[in-house]
Amino acid sequence: MLHDIVLLGAVTLLGVLEQAFFALQVIAARRKYNVSPPNTSGPPDFERVFRAQVNCTEYFPLFLAVLWLSGIFFHQGTAAACGVLYLYARYRYFTGYRSSSQGRLAPMYLNAGVLWFMIALSAFGILQVLFAHYLEVNIL
Amino acid sequence: MLHDIVLLGAVTLLGVLEQAFFALQVIAARRKYNVSPPNTSGPPDFERVFRAQVNCTEYFPLFLAVLWLSGIFFHQGTAAACGVLYLYARYRYFTGYRSSSQGRLAPMYLNAGVLWFMIALSAFGILQVLFAHYLEVNIL
Amino acid sequence: MLHDIVLLGAVTLLGVLEQAFFALQVIAARRKYNVSPPNTSGPPDFERVFRAQVNCTEYFPLFLAVLWLSGIFFHQGTAAACGVLYLYARYRYFTGYRSSSQGRLAPMYLNAGVLWFMIALSAFGILQVLFAHYLEVNIL
Repeated sequence: MLHDIVLLGAVTLLGVLEQAFFALQVIAARRKYNVSPPNTSGPPDFERVFRAQVNCTEYFPLFLAVLWLSGIFFHQGTAAACGVLYLYARYRYFTGYRSSSQGRLAPMYLNAGVLWFMIALSAFGILQVLFAHYLEVNIL
Repeated sequence: MLHDIVLLGAVTLLGVLEQAFFALQVIAARRKYNVSPPNTSGPPDFERVFRAQVNCTEYFPLFLAVLWLSGIFFHQGTAAACGVLYLYARYRYFTGYRSSSQGRLAPMYLNAGVLWFMIALSAFGILQVLFAHYLEVNIL
Repeated sequence: MLHDIVLLGAVTLLGVLEQAFFALQVIAARRKYNVSPPNTSGPPDFERVFRAQVNCTEYFPLFLAVLWLSGIFFHQGTAAACGVLYLYARYRYFTGYRSSSQGRLAPMYLNAGVLWFMIALSAFGILQVLFAHYLEVNIL
């Protein structure tokens, strides 16, 4: 049923909007610091914005994967709440990195922590289904 | 049922093939302009091909996310049609960018337009399910 | 039912863990070769690790797409087995590329071969459903 995945869908859409926001920030930074495509190097102020966006983009598929795995195999509400926290930490990461290389660190640790927690939830949920289906063992 | 998602699957596969095509174009450009990995900088003609592929790759997860969200929560056929249009615009973007930085602009606006439209469809579909399930309100 | 996708989920999670491993290797290489963010250029030994991770990351969404398409439209067990082989080839690619540009080639061909095979399985499964549903033709 759609309501079993609608919160995951909503968080996914929020994530897409956040990525679109980051992409627009890079376009703005290209104009501000006069760095025309296909160039990607320029003053450090530009390069930090650029790298912040690239880093968020690299992690986005990993994030979506564990959001849906933990939401489907563990619990939708918990996964969606973690997802919102992750997106918040990403926003802090982006704005922190934009200010200084140092500023990306604290939100980066929060991001990593939430991601590992979602990985753990996914692993638990998947192992539970694997054990129940292939070994007929209930690990709860 | 599989036929409720088969058009989304077909467009996804088309997208994968397009991305494979872009990747092969970068390999060909590396040979033509003599830019060996791990280098990514070279003559502008190479860098435009390289950046075109990177940009398409960055947007691919966003595209897949809104393709499936709009297809599942709004309407499969509409989503699949938008998806085909998006992939066509991406092809135009890639070949346009390969010719000149200027050449990427018109297809880029089409890409962005289709993506925002799919985001709107997804948002509408998700809100509809959220309202129906949590508030028992039919927003249609 | 969850057991119809649990092997795909398990392979997806394995892939996420592998990507996390690659990301940690880049962080370690940044320290070893003293390349601070947002810089991405440095000695060739660093750049090969960096490019290896970027390349694995670029292909990760394509891999997930064909893993799930072939698993849902063709056969879960076959898709999951191909997925494990792909992740093994990616590991060999990463460690090979880290040693030398030449070292990435053999695993790269294995990666590409497995990916094309999964694309073929997906295409076959999707065409089968399309023919059955829209033309009422059984292509088996």
